[in-house]
Amino acid sequence: MNEIRRFREGDWGALWPLLRATFDAGETYAFAPGSTEAEIRAAWIEAPAATYVACDDDARVVGTYYIKPNQPGLGSHVCNCGYVVAADAQGRGVAAAMCEHSQREALALGFRAMQFNLVVVTNERAIRLWRRLGFDVIGTLPGAFRHVREGYVDALVMYKTLH
Amino acid sequence: MNEIRRFREGDWGALWPLLRATFDAGETYAFAPGSTEAEIRAAWIEAPAATYVACDDDARVVGTYYIKPNQPGLGSHVCNCGYVVAADAQGRGVAAAMCEHSQREALALGFRAMQFNLVVVTNERAIRLWRRLGFDVIGTLPGAFRHVREGYVDALVMYKTLH
Repeated sequence: MNEIRRFREGDWGALWPLLRATFDAGETYAFAPGSTEAEIRAAWIEAPAATYVACDDDARVVGTYYIKPNQPGLGSHVCNCGYVVAADAQGRGVAAAMCEHSQREALALGFRAMQFNLVVVTNERAIRLWRRLGFDVIGTLPGAFRHVREGYVDALVMYKTLH
Repeated sequence: MNEIRRFREGDWGALWPLLRATFDAGETYAFAPGSTEAEIRAAWIEAPAATYVACDDDARVVGTYYIKPNQPGLGSHVCNCGYVVAADAQGRGVAAAMCEHSQREALALGFRAMQFNLVVVTNERAIRLWRRLGFDVIGTLPGAFRHVREGYVDALVMYKTLH
């Protein structure tokens, strides 16, 4: 991986297929499989405070994340992030690099903590990674995620105070 | 209390001062104190799947709650509710009646569980009530709420499977 930088308008053409493939799989994110391009663009680009892309040495987009307040007003010092890595770029440390980058960005943007609201228990690689990067499991939400193949599965709330 | 029913457009004049007083207190909800009428209307009436009011024997609005999916798509079988009771109607069972009503409505609307994302630990009366009504504490989010008088305080995630 070469760099992680702010999303630019010209990135969307590369980003949308990557996001669509992840959400259509229905294994890790709540976004409904079959969500439209406009819906996903609103959720990933327009609603967040900032969106980033990770590029490999050929300047190809191999990952992306967003950062946004997890709650309004009196809860807005806690941010939420979502990360997606291209299927053919898994296992190269892209998610770890983006999560570490996002923690620095979160602090720079004035956030004091980071919360993941729905970490699907079958997503074991992600849970291992978030733990390694200092996130605590706050608790387990029973049956809170409807996995497309496995049906209702538990999901974790994870949290890290930033400093 | 006389009835709990769906919000009607003519209720807003009574509802807004009640909501404003609660949110401006800055003790229980994340909505920023000083939020505009349009912002609160969007959050309490427009965004949710449904909004309700509780009326006393004189048909005065003494409470309100909303119900909405807590996540999109594959998490949309879990709902989130928020409840507000008028200051001069506390201690009369309005919150309990609304929460029980909301659980029946949630089932009727197709939800399978109910989640509270940010129950402020200083809101002891609410925590006692939600526990009594069958909600479990999933975990504690450290410093996730900026209480207007007490500063950063913890908040609970609470959850109940409905049946």
